[in-house]
Amino acid sequence: MLTFIGMGLYDEKDISIKGYEKVKEADEVYIEFYTSKLVGTTRERLEEFFGREIVELRREDLEDRSRELVEKARHKDIVLLIPGDVAVATTHSSIMLEARQKGVDIQLIHGASIVSAVCGLTGLHNYRFGKSATVAYPYGKTVSRTPIRVILDNWSINAHTLLYLDLHPEPMTIAKAVEILKKADDDKMLKDAYAVGLARAGSEKPVVRCDRLYELPEHDFGDPLYIMVVLAKKLHITEYEFLSAFANAPHELSLSVE
Amino acid sequence: MLTFIGMGLYDEKDISIKGYEKVKEADEVYIEFYTSKLVGTTRERLEEFFGREIVELRREDLEDRSRELVEKARHKDIVLLIPGDVAVATTHSSIMLEARQKGVDIQLIHGASIVSAVCGLTGLHNYRFGKSATVAYPYGKTVSRTPIRVILDNWSINAHTLLYLDLHPEPMTIAKAVEILKKADDDKMLKDAYAVGLARAGSEKPVVRCDRLYELPEHDFGDPLYIMVVLAKKLHITEYEFLSAFANAPHELSLSVE
Repeated sequence: MLTFIGMGLYDEKDISIKGYEKVKEADEVYIEFYTSKLVGTTRERLEEFFGREIVELRREDLEDRSRELVEKARHKDIVLLIPGDVAVATTHSSIMLEARQKGVDIQLIHGASIVSAVCGLTGLHNYRFGKSATVAYPYGKTVSRTPIRVILDNWSINAHTLLYLDLHPEPMTIAKAVEILKKADDDKMLKDAYAVGLARAGSEKPVVRCDRLYELPEHDFGDPLYIMVVLAKKLHITEYEFLSAFANAPHELSLSVE
Repeated sequence: MLTFIGMGLYDEKDISIKGYEKVKEADEVYIEFYTSKLVGTTRERLEEFFGREIVELRREDLEDRSRELVEKARHKDIVLLIPGDVAVATTHSSIMLEARQKGVDIQLIHGASIVSAVCGLTGLHNYRFGKSATVAYPYGKTVSRTPIRVILDNWSINAHTLLYLDLHPEPMTIAKAVEILKKADDDKMLKDAYAVGLARAGSEKPVVRCDRLYELPEHDFGDPLYIMVVLAKKLHITEYEFLSAFANAPHELSLSVE
């Protein structure tokens, strides 16, 4: 059996009781910090917390050694720990598929994900989020326009856009992400956009700030991880009220309320 | 302090360690099963599990007695337990806002939500989900067209649609939801739509089936809770492979792969 366990958002105590018990009783436990991170802990602290060895899988392991993991899981109880929830990153569904094709049983134990946590932290309505995208570090001189295309797509149906920020080689800051978006925004489509920057979701001191997208770099978000939401053109009144109360939203944002 | 704790998807062991510890040490603990449910447990079993009294809030309590809860939290450590994650339902963000306006501190402890779990269970890519909607029981003879409008909006940007099923007076079945959608679909816009039905996410035996939307009632999903996803018109190859391997997707779905 290959069990995928979502670890939640921030530190070792964000795993579910079900997940914790499974880690304790498994034959072997692996973890990957490639698709996301748990900035409130380390592999060493996790080993102490669970009282057992945890082997970290690197990017190349995830891609090349997943076969090995699946084979092991044929006769042993193998756990793969994943920050956030299972298979929000497509890497994990590929491993699940490989297991299925080889007749190896899988099990999922879910964890909290930024995908839902963003609603509690921003007050933005879950049903109003559209497609999401990742702001990637430029590849040479090439800046991807994908996030801009996704934001425009979502605007066409009056939806918010969750933007993940690249983690490699290091977690991208909100200032850097805005700089990259600006570079890709040839036609200044985003110049009037409002956005929310969010740091350390799941911690005791998350920071949430709402401003014009291109003004977000002026705010101090503290330590990583970060995500951003580019707002739909129209807001529900309670979304505005929440952002005003919890995220220092500028008063002009009230003009977006429909 | 008013602490909102997401309980996760299915039973008492889906709460995080952090949430569990907070419940143990709080002055008073409340729970609501109005915005969602934990079908794998009961309030009584939760009381036994946590070794303390847990007061259930009904719908009218959530709306009228939230003021009382907020006032109590001014001097006491109050916990509100919520199935799934915090504030995926907008009811919770209203209570948070009320607390903020009265100067009462709040804290969020997140839990797993169907919003992310659906990715691990269906293999559908997180970044390809658009807006979501709820299929509501008809109000008199009036069937809401909102889910259809949302599906069409999402199709216009090639996105999947997560559909929540009404919980009141009782959890809606997938067969009933399809019947309601059919009634609202005057122009037969959804007749060629493919969809995924999902039962008991977070349990050991979730059921996931992919078929034409209007054929889903032919499948046996077993006990609640249920949700559905209406697929985008175009699929990624790995989405198709996953649905084929895990959800008995019909072979014709391969024609949707782009």
